[in-house]
Formats: sequence, structure tokens, C-alpha cells
Amino acid sequence: MTFQAALKNTANEIEVMLDGLLSLETSRAPRVTEAMRYSALAQGKRLRPFFVSESARILGADRQQALRVGAALECIHCYSLVHDDLPAMDDDDLRRGKPTCHIAYDEATAILAGDGLLTVAFEIVADPATHKDGAVRAELALELARASGHNGMVGGQMLDLAAEQKHSHDLDEIIAIQSLKTGALFRFSLEGGAILAQAGADDRATMRTFADKIGLAFQIADDILDVESSPEQLGKATQKDADAGKATFIDLFGLDGARQKAGTLADEACDLLAAYGDKADTLREAARFIVERKN
Amino acid sequence: MTFQAALKNTANEIEVMLDGLLSLETSRAPRVTEAMRYSALAQGKRLRPFFVSESARILGADRQQALRVGAALECIHCYSLVHDDLPAMDDDDLRRGKPTCHIAYDEATAILAGDGLLTVAFEIVADPATHKDGAVRAELALELARASGHNGMVGGQMLDLAAEQKHSHDLDEIIAIQSLKTGALFRFSLEGGAILAQAGADDRATMRTFADKIGLAFQIADDILDVESSPEQLGKATQKDADAGKATFIDLFGLDGARQKAGTLADEACDLLAAYGDKADTLREAARFIVERKN
Repeated sequence: MTFQAALKNTANEIEVMLDGLLSLETSRAPRVTEAMRYSALAQGKRLRPFFVSESARILGADRQQALRVGAALECIHCYSLVHDDLPAMDDDDLRRGKPTCHIAYDEATAILAGDGLLTVAFEIVADPATHKDGAVRAELALELARASGHNGMVGGQMLDLAAEQKHSHDLDEIIAIQSLKTGALFRFSLEGGAILAQAGADDRATMRTFADKIGLAFQIADDILDVESSPEQLGKATQKDADAGKATFIDLFGLDGARQKAGTLADEACDLLAAYGDKADTLREAARFIVERKN
Repeated sequence: MTFQAALKNTANEIEVMLDGLLSLETSRAPRVTEAMRYSALAQGKRLRPFFVSESARILGADRQQALRVGAALECIHCYSLVHDDLPAMDDDDLRRGKPTCHIAYDEATAILAGDGLLTVAFEIVADPATHKDGAVRAELALELARASGHNGMVGGQMLDLAAEQKHSHDLDEIIAIQSLKTGALFRFSLEGGAILAQAGADDRATMRTFADKIGLAFQIADDILDVESSPEQLGKATQKDADAGKATFIDLFGLDGARQKAGTLADEACDLLAAYGDKADTLREAARFIVERKN
């Protein structure tokens, strides 16, 4: 199966799974569940679930279980967008071509919907349906919490806000921020499949390093898109970083330099997968896609 | 040990534990970790950790492990206060006698600190230090997520905001909201000790029902305090409910009726503990304290 077909397949399956997991019928507080659904069933690329499912496939874990971990990751990713879009944070009105959660509902509901999505992610991974071995479920919950918490994604978001204020242009600092803000969840998405497969330390390390490379490539590509695309193409506001005086990889490398750097990272990421042969072809295509995508 | 001494002991141990768990030294993003510490190391009563530790003691689980679960619960409780206090929610400036998190820091930091506290709770319970059996850790994470998520505490908060707007005075509705908003975490705190002890279904059911009774009694007592106390006594704004046009148990039962109802619930809660004999005396004292407290 080609990468695009595999990505589309996973996105469809995740949509169905999230629809079931965020059930309105069994909801005790329909408004917040609706707002969670509004934000999570918003047809993103579902890259993170795709990575879990590919890592799981390559290392021999069950696909349905991998999709559950992917759904949990998507809940974390979507909650972070809902909270980042709030007026006190990035103050964005548009996300994936739709009004952001606090515009469609209100700020209080958006805060609660984000909290609900964050929490339900742990409900999903800790549920016996995710793996029969409790130690695997607990490890998934532990690593997901580390990746998304104050020493992971939340910490990256905090550092990013601070960097904006002080107009930092230090390369190491920008990479460190990216590694937390975007990288930590990418890392968990690739390692999550390995945890499900109860793979050894070598496989886990390979998946983590692959994730680091493509995570950084992803962020560089994001910066390129931010200056090259229109809001219509991206479904969200562009040039926000430049407007906010935030240093981007373009400032550091120039546009061509940034393209080249992203390409090199994708090459390096692909090389890491040599031991998995053809089985890793879709993942290699994904690495290419990340640096060449148009939205 | 008397209840007051046991509560104080637990509060001290929780303070030390949270200080270690929310370490600044190992923080990747000190500002958000500081804001988390500001909100979590704020010397609350630590009632929920006390309940876990008592339930664990009565049913034979390890105290250090129970304190870890208590620390996780306190992180959830504190995150909910940080987010509830935000301008878009209850818009409170004062909490436990100190400026609320978004006043001491700023709104963006408070949102992220809340997210960080919510997330670290799962990092704490899923860590092998919490229990050697992975199935126990996963069950703790699952039940904690259920109790605090959109069909638990977050859902209760959503319903509470809606009830405010429509000025509902329906008793069943108010009890249902309380059961989610405050009750779900009380339920988890009592059941958490039973999960750690790998106790049977009967013990778990007893602890849950005890929690339901004292949870409702707690909320009624809160409503009484809200009309009878000064902001100085409570360390937070009072009469907010009446100002917001929110129905309270005082509206429904009158002040004397509310006191009587809370007392009856405490009696019923204590009766449930008959099978545990003297071992449950501290828990019985706690039930009394909840309806007689002054802050």
C-alpha cells in the first residue's frame, strides 16, 4: 500500500474510533462532549496515529490496539490545539478551515473540552482493550504523560511563549523547544508501537531516533509553509510567527537552507530503518511527505 | 491517632512528595513547573490524599503507594482549581488566601500549569513506584481518568456553568452535577486505596458508597460556608454562587435543613463502615469534620 493510501486508511479508521470513544449517547455532559467531538473529529491528517500504526505493523503489534493508542495521541494533539488557540495563548480564530473551539462554543467550554480530551487520552490507553498486559497499558500511560506533560509538550509550549517575548534567535534553543513542543509526541507515536509490540531496547531506540529526525523536519517544513502558503491552503492563519517576532528556521537557515536541512533529516531518518527492509517503505515515504507537504 | 493529627500528617507527607515530584531542578521549562508548584504546594487540607491513605490503611495497602495516588489526586484537584479560577470560567483572584495562578503568573501560564498538573497525575500513578503490578497501575490510571474526565469532574464543571446560566433549582439536577463535579474525585480517592489493596468488589462498593455520601455532604457544607463565612476565613471569595444566580442546597433546604441533611449523610456514611470496626474510626471522624468544618 502506498503512503497516501495508508495515511488515508488510518485517518478513516481513527475517525470511526474517535466517534465511538467520544460518544454523545453515553455523555453525562453533552455540551463538553460536543465541543470535544468538534475539535477531535475535524479530519486532520492523523499523522501521529499513522506513525503508531506503522511502528506497530513493522514490529508486529496488533493494528486495532495501535489505532487505540493513535486515537489517544490524537486526543492529546487536539487538546493542545484547542488550548493553544485560546485568546490568552495564540488567539487564533481559524483551525483546519473551521472556527476554533472557543469561537464555535465559548472560552470556558474550550478550556473544558481541552481538559476532557487530555483526560480521555489516558482513559483510552489504560483500558484493557488497548492491551491484555497491564504493564504494557501502564507503560503507555506513563510514556504518554511524560511526552505530553511539563517536561514534554506542555513545557515546549511554555518555552515557545517565552521565546516569542524575548525574540530569541539561538539555534540550539529553538531546536530544544521544538524537540519538546512537537518532538515529544512524535517520539511517543513511534515508540508507542514498539511498546505495544513489547519490542526490545534497540527497536525502541531506533523508533525514537527516527521520530526525532522527522519531528525536527516537520517543524522546519511548518516554518516553510508558514511563509509560503496562504491561509486558504493551510486552513489556519499564516505568518503568525513572523508577526509575533518569533525566530523560525527560515531566519536561521534561509528558505533554501531550511529546505535542504529538512531534506537531509528525512534522508537520515530513512537510513535508520535499514534493518526493517521493505516493511518500512511506507514509513520512509512518510518521512519524504513531511518535508514536501503543502499543508 | 486522631483525625486532625492524621490529616495533618498526610498533608505534610503530600507536601514533601509533591515537592519531589514537581522538581524544579530537573524541569525542562522552569516557568510552568514553578506555576504548577505555586498551585499544588499551596497547603490545602489534602482531604483527597487523606481518603486514599485511610482507605489503603483499612484495606491493607502500602502507605507510600497510597500517598503517591494521593499526590496524583491532588494534582488533578489543583489543576481543576487553576482552570476554574480563569477569567473565562469563575474569574477568581483569590485562592487559599493567595493570588490565583493567572494573577500570580498570567493566563497562558495558568492554562499550561493546569494542563501540566493534569498530565503529571497520570505520570505519577502509571509509574512502577506506585505499584509493582502493572494491572493495578493501569486500573488506577483508568479510574482516575474516568473520575476526572468529561463524564466525571470536567463534565460536572460544564453542567455547573450551564446551570448557572439557566438558574436551575431542580434538586435532582443539582445533586447530579455535584456527583460529577466533586463526587467523582471523592469516589476515586476512596476506591483508589481499595484498588491498591487489590480488594474485592464488596470493599470497593462500600468505599464508593461512603464517598458518595460524604461527597454530597461536603458540597452541602460548602454551600453553608459560602453564605456564613467571610473571604478572610475561607481564603477565597464568598457568596459567589448567590451572586451568579446559581441554585445552592441552601435554596432547596434552607440553612437549618441543609445542616440537618449534611449531618444525616455523615451518619449514613459512618454506618457503612461497620465491618471495619475501630480501624475506620479516623474515617468516621473525617465524615464528621466534613460537615462541621469552618473553611
